Amino acid sequence: VRTRDTILRKAVGIASVGGLEGLTIGKLSTALRISKSGLFAHFGSKEELQIAVIETARDIFIDEVIRPTVGLHGRKRLEGLCRHWLSYAERGVFPGGCFFSAASMEFDDRPGKVRDFLVALMNRWLSGLEEAVREAQESGEIDRSVDAHQIAFEIHSLEMGANWSSRLLHDKGAFDTGWHAIRERLDRIATERSRK
Amino acid sequence: VRTRDTILRKAVGIASVGGLEGLTIGKLSTALRISKSGLFAHFGSKEELQIAVIETARDIFIDEVIRPTVGLHGRKRLEGLCRHWLSYAERGVFPGGCFFSAASMEFDDRPGKVRDFLVALMNRWLSGLEEAVREAQESGEIDRSVDAHQIAFEIHSLEMGANWSSRLLHDKGAFDTGWHAIRERLDRIATERSRK
Repeated sequence: VRTRDTILRKAVGIASVGGLEGLTIGKLSTALRISKSGLFAHFGSKEELQIAVIETARDIFIDEVIRPTVGLHGRKRLEGLCRHWLSYAERGVFPGGCFFSAASMEFDDRPGKVRDFLVALMNRWLSGLEEAVREAQESGEIDRSVDAHQIAFEIHSLEMGANWSSRLLHDKGAFDTGWHAIRERLDRIATERSRK
Repeated sequence: VRTRDTILRKAVGIASVGGLEGLTIGKLSTALRISKSGLFAHFGSKEELQIAVIETARDIFIDEVIRPTVGLHGRKRLEGLCRHWLSYAERGVFPGGCFFSAASMEFDDRPGKVRDFLVALMNRWLSGLEEAVREAQESGEIDRSVDAHQIAFEIHSLEMGANWSSRLLHDKGAFDTGWHAIRERLDRIATERSRK
């Protein structure tokens, strides 16, 4: 008997390649060789399945990107979040690249619970980046005049841009280009003191 | 009688919101109140319809973003391409935001003619940005030691990031944040001479 968790890990992989809308109960039942009714017992509707898949992707993301930075502070934490994000996307933790880049573009024009959940997660990620910038400002490593929201926006854009170039253009240098841009940006807002 | 062009303009709008895969001959026939057989007369298959829609989107993009920069040179042309891109996305030329951001994420894992065409168009756009950077280097406005490929990557990422924040988060400041980042990046690579 397949557990709910096993089903969801498989479903995340399928959704990361074919999109959340492409993840039908029918397709999943074929991929897992279990009955549709068995799947319906776990997930009452396609929307519930989509939400459960996003929760699973979020847990994997936390393990891959957030957890390795626990214990780090200031600029080290900010750099850690960036490096682990790029590594997570580059290593193909999800076969379709960054799960959230794809899902958020897919649902930006589809109002409902799935979109609301994605917005909440994306805002949490961006706030986390902003907090890391502010922490580095408080510890004197990043210039206090810098707008944390602006920096979080830029880091996030450069990460998603790297994922995009890697996925669409098969650009093998995409993650290096992205990291180069982020490191250069962080160097430029570093305080004199922190450069010593 | 609806012309092919009228059909395609409508189809581009539908695809920019619901995705290219969501654009079925059935949905389009309902939206336009014409028969499926009438549509099949214009487009033999869904793939042909998708390609024709992308060609239409490309023509609109050229009119909105490329054409206004004709006659500009060097840094002015580079800045013009960025400003017109941001304006095109912000004004909602396509109701779903940047058509190509959405389509390229949708098709990054779907091999075939549609993906190949999108890759060719995206490479052309990125090459155009690179060329504009090189032109500004040759005219002495941008530092010659700068890697044009890197700058094009960053501009493109920041543009797509602004579109993403606007579409998903309904961030009204997204395009200003994007423009601030791009202008700051261009200022930083400007030669001393060009700053006078």
